[in-house]
Amino acid sequence: MREKRFYIYPVGVIKKSNNETFIEIYPEYKDALLNLEHYSHIIVLFWFDKNDIPEKREILQVHPRRHKGAPLSGVFATCSPVRPNLIGLTICKIDKIDKNIIKISDIDAFDNTPVLDIKPYIPKEHMLLEEEIKVPEWMK
Amino acid sequence: MREKRFYIYPVGVIKKSNNETFIEIYPEYKDALLNLEHYSHIIVLFWFDKNDIPEKREILQVHPRRHKGAPLSGVFATCSPVRPNLIGLTICKIDKIDKNIIKISDIDAFDNTPVLDIKPYIPKEHMLLEEEIKVPEWMK
Repeated sequence: MREKRFYIYPVGVIKKSNNETFIEIYPEYKDALLNLEHYSHIIVLFWFDKNDIPEKREILQVHPRRHKGAPLSGVFATCSPVRPNLIGLTICKIDKIDKNIIKISDIDAFDNTPVLDIKPYIPKEHMLLEEEIKVPEWMK
Repeated sequence: MREKRFYIYPVGVIKKSNNETFIEIYPEYKDALLNLEHYSHIIVLFWFDKNDIPEKREILQVHPRRHKGAPLSGVFATCSPVRPNLIGLTICKIDKIDKNIIKISDIDAFDNTPVLDIKPYIPKEHMLLEEEIKVPEWMK
């Protein structure tokens, strides 16, 4: 299916300095932040740009490093930074929004990571009932 | 920043028939599903392909249609299907996985929507404490 592809343009970048973390939204996308300050948390989608080489995007199975006892797993069953489309997802707390700069709690991404999209965290869409959720033993 | 761009390749497609909903993962990505059956829920990232024209990707503010009383908002403060990068996100319950086909609970996306990525829903990463979350009045 490699004949079909879509283009993604970074809308900003993650900046880390002095133990603080920011999302710098590029000025041309600043208007897309209107009213975001009414939310406490955001879903940040970013691009694992360090892995953006064909060889890494072809990796379909990994040993999840952070979880002891985890067996070899398909990348769709992990949050691995190698995957066919290098989209990372983290939920962050908004500390402050100042013009095009969002100060956030820490994020599990490198300095200068390209940001693709931001969505508000909405309980009725993103929270599940704890008792409904099943995860494997090695993820508990 | 339009000089920088990344390529996204669909890894599958959403299929709806007879009131049932499936994610058909393309056979070449099937190995990426190993162990996914140990999870109950997935985060599905898809592409709002019907809006993939430059004019729609330039829209930065919308009136969220589904929420009465919602003011004009930046697309990053909404889940609007128009946004600079047309990534949609939905959390789905896995009903069954059969080879490269994931039967899911319904999904808020059209038949034949391209699927970009799948991640397991992991409470310690994706659940927040209800009392920590703030959303605006019009989203309650």
